[in-house]
Amino acid sequence: MALARVARSSLRRSGGGIGCYSSGREIFCEGVSAERSALPSFDNVKANGNSSFFSGTMKVDHSSFWRRGVTTTPHYHSPLAERIVEGTELGLDHEEPRYAGLEATKPGEKPRVVVLGSGWAACRFLKGLDTRIYDIVCISPRNHMVFTPLLASTCVGTLEFRSVAEPVSQIQSALATEPNSYFYLASCTGIDTNKHEVYCETLSNGLLPREPHHFKVAYDKLVIAAGAEPLTFGIKGVKENAYFLREVNHAQEIRKKLLLNLMLSENPGVSEEEKKHLLHCVIVGGGPTGVEFSGELSDFIMKDVEERYTHVKDYIKVTLIEANDILSSFDVGLRQYATNHLTKSGVQLKRGIVKEVLPKEIILNDGTVVPYGLLVWSTGVGPSEFVKSLNLPKSPGGRIGVDEWLRVPSVEDVFGLGDCAGFLEQTGKPVLPALAQVAERQGKYLVELFNRIGKQDAGKAFSAKNIPFGDPFVYKHLGSMASVGGYKALVDLRQSKDAKGISLAGFLSFLIWRSAYLTRVVSWRNRFYVAMNWATTLAFGRDNSRIG
Amino acid sequence: MALARVARSSLRRSGGGIGCYSSGREIFCEGVSAERSALPSFDNVKANGNSSFFSGTMKVDHSSFWRRGVTTTPHYHSPLAERIVEGTELGLDHEEPRYAGLEATKPGEKPRVVVLGSGWAACRFLKGLDTRIYDIVCISPRNHMVFTPLLASTCVGTLEFRSVAEPVSQIQSALATEPNSYFYLASCTGIDTNKHEVYCETLSNGLLPREPHHFKVAYDKLVIAAGAEPLTFGIKGVKENAYFLREVNHAQEIRKKLLLNLMLSENPGVSEEEKKHLLHCVIVGGGPTGVEFSGELSDFIMKDVEERYTHVKDYIKVTLIEANDILSSFDVGLRQYATNHLTKSGVQLKRGIVKEVLPKEIILNDGTVVPYGLLVWSTGVGPSEFVKSLNLPKSPGGRIGVDEWLRVPSVEDVFGLGDCAGFLEQTGKPVLPALAQVAERQGKYLVELFNRIGKQDAGKAFSAKNIPFGDPFVYKHLGSMASVGGYKALVDLRQSKDAKGISLAGFLSFLIWRSAYLTRVVSWRNRFYVAMNWATTLAFGRDNSRIG
Repeated sequence: MALARVARSSLRRSGGGIGCYSSGREIFCEGVSAERSALPSFDNVKANGNSSFFSGTMKVDHSSFWRRGVTTTPHYHSPLAERIVEGTELGLDHEEPRYAGLEATKPGEKPRVVVLGSGWAACRFLKGLDTRIYDIVCISPRNHMVFTPLLASTCVGTLEFRSVAEPVSQIQSALATEPNSYFYLASCTGIDTNKHEVYCETLSNGLLPREPHHFKVAYDKLVIAAGAEPLTFGIKGVKENAYFLREVNHAQEIRKKLLLNLMLSENPGVSEEEKKHLLHCVIVGGGPTGVEFSGELSDFIMKDVEERYTHVKDYIKVTLIEANDILSSFDVGLRQYATNHLTKSGVQLKRGIVKEVLPKEIILNDGTVVPYGLLVWSTGVGPSEFVKSLNLPKSPGGRIGVDEWLRVPSVEDVFGLGDCAGFLEQTGKPVLPALAQVAERQGKYLVELFNRIGKQDAGKAFSAKNIPFGDPFVYKHLGSMASVGGYKALVDLRQSKDAKGISLAGFLSFLIWRSAYLTRVVSWRNRFYVAMNWATTLAFGRDNSRIG
Repeated sequence: MALARVARSSLRRSGGGIGCYSSGREIFCEGVSAERSALPSFDNVKANGNSSFFSGTMKVDHSSFWRRGVTTTPHYHSPLAERIVEGTELGLDHEEPRYAGLEATKPGEKPRVVVLGSGWAACRFLKGLDTRIYDIVCISPRNHMVFTPLLASTCVGTLEFRSVAEPVSQIQSALATEPNSYFYLASCTGIDTNKHEVYCETLSNGLLPREPHHFKVAYDKLVIAAGAEPLTFGIKGVKENAYFLREVNHAQEIRKKLLLNLMLSENPGVSEEEKKHLLHCVIVGGGPTGVEFSGELSDFIMKDVEERYTHVKDYIKVTLIEANDILSSFDVGLRQYATNHLTKSGVQLKRGIVKEVLPKEIILNDGTVVPYGLLVWSTGVGPSEFVKSLNLPKSPGGRIGVDEWLRVPSVEDVFGLGDCAGFLEQTGKPVLPALAQVAERQGKYLVELFNRIGKQDAGKAFSAKNIPFGDPFVYKHLGSMASVGGYKALVDLRQSKDAKGISLAGFLSFLIWRSAYLTRVVSWRNRFYVAMNWATTLAFGRDNSRIG
């Protein structure tokens, strides 16, 4: 009854909650974009961790503008988590349970690890967990992992969408087959670290009597790998008008819009100016994602539009807006190479700071008006509303603060991984960039730690206090890669921005880029499909069916 | 200015207009489903061709509930076509043209063939047209052809969506490359057979100043291959609550819903009854599409749900509702085989007539209430609102009436193909079933006729009057096929329902079914992908990522 009272019927899905993760290549330190100077303010990024909370309970409500590829997360308090705590604390007794769910594990049962998220960190963790020791519950609004480095390729049909999505239950089959392990398609709305419980709500479907359906899951260990959200720096109109590029359905929407614009511009009676407007693709943010998407677009234009949209091919243009140099984390030679290559491929590089985004045009700080037909926003990521709402210690930049063993030190049995977590200031270590390789390595580190302590019977709640955690997590950067289109890529093998090391650009780098990613794709099935997609794109061109 | 006045800003897409076509296997004769006795009334089917019209101009307005896979087509009059004629007839002169578009071809220019639709008939016609003789304009709200016989397989991930979609511009490259040939992503709203013009409106996008954007296209020859619409027989709630299975995005929606229901039912706190409700998949209509979808679902359940949704596998059930025998057009032995096979695979076959569809349950005529979590409606197709609105002679069943040469006899230079057309009563021939093989053969016949008369300089408007059209179109049925799941299929090679001939069922038929379809897939690229999808499904199971 209580649940029914607080249930809301609107569809709520967390694009920014635990389903978000980093595309992995734009952000360095403190949640601030490498392209940061393109943007006017960091207020949004830094104003974290100051919300008021109920003791021991953290909550969040995320209403997502999911379909548009845009996340809006009004930061208001969900009454649910509050009520749960209030009710429990007051010892209220109701006719029916306030919330059903998984109760705490009993002595003799396997300890239960709850994982929030299904990105790089979460999936690497899930993959390695010893299911003879632990039961697992994974909670995410998305049932698959996205192979983010190849997402830009799917927008123009170089790769198919399915080739970059890997179902979580394929990564860790125990979720599907073990009697006490589960995958829940749901958003986490609150955590009670004292009671060792998380509170969740499902997607709405219209079929269950109470929607969204609420439930709780008690944990022995909690791993928060809930990812981050795209940064918009509070710029008006971004969420409403721009596409982000972080989920498979974002890529689907971009592809649909691009093909629609191409076809609309062919219609009779559309003026030259309208054609140019429809076919002006603008990318804001010159990090790896923005550059790779620009490169894919220019490939698509030079090859496929040239051949298949001959009536309008001369009207399509790509502009990449960035305040400073593109790819600022890369070696200066590579940066120059990328700049030259993109310019040669017809991508206009424009320095500018975005002031406002209107439905058909962007206003820059210097007053320039840039009309667009498609706008992709890729200026890095910052803490999600969910992370902001958690009453946990924060790292510089507002992520969940963790120590060298990736645990949240002030509470017991809670760990943070990937883009949502950062080293606490007192560790003396910098917050790591929001990269796939960081997330994956953290997932690998933590799961080895879990398997080790699990064998020492420290898997249960409140049981790991006196267990040595072993070596702390140390991150060694293996280098960065970015493709720039035209079978060219950059490979920067330096360990940090200021270090010396090997850097390559060109076709050889492109081969390295493709091989490296092909070997990183999670399953053989998708590895096979990615290779087939590349081959058929080469042989037959990109697919341009507009579905939906 | 005039256009701006009549423009409406709402998004309108014709799912039922020229983008519709038949899944090709359910309907036999007169637009009435082979499963017809499952349904209470044929009023909708027969009440055609009686609308009131302006002389020489036909118009339609179709607002489609496209995303849900459901088409709602309120039948009101678009003011556009009326105004155009009125204005023209009154000789009004305006500051700017009332509607831009392609004017009639001039002497010396190639004749222009306008094709409405992008289904089997339209695409076979487009493929064969001699572009040295003709310019082509194809108008459809969908830029690809759907390989309908394999659509059911995409709902459960046996095949990927892209594998069954073929871009029109790949089928006929002149549309993309010839300076005077075009593909327009638009719906046809009216035809003026006297002026030899069609009137169209584009999809809305928010970027053009007048939306939906209207334009006209003058034709020398018009080929209407605009397909049909799913029959709902006026049953309340079908359009609102059921999924059809005729477009790729319908299949996408069905897959999303199926996976969502599977995952929701796993959530803690969902009762046994709710689980059963969520996981009850109901198919109405026992024609080939309904049977093949049931078979695919039972394969999915027996193989993939069994392995990957072990917590809820015992709750999922499939029910196929049909008033008479399933597959009524097939040989009685095959019918019995299919019935036995489906029953053995766990599909419940239920005799019943649907009275009303509510959001969570179906009411049958005998009062039975059938709760469902997913409802797929597949009871055949009938004339679309667009076809109904055309002031052209009609065949029995309300299709566009054509003679033995597939031309509409009362007007000049207009031809009808596929599911939207049928032989006029006076031809003495029966209306052909809404089958892919009929549509394809008609497309082939007509394009050969066009190429022949084109060479005799009869391609231009009003120029074919005294040209002999040669042999009339004769349809010879090559047989029917349907898969029933579990690597089993039916092959019925009899030429008609009452004729004698070979019929097969079992694994050998399944191989014939797969090989036959594989060779019919339009492009090598998709042939390759379909084969790869089958191979990977066999090796790795079906993909169950829920995207979007």
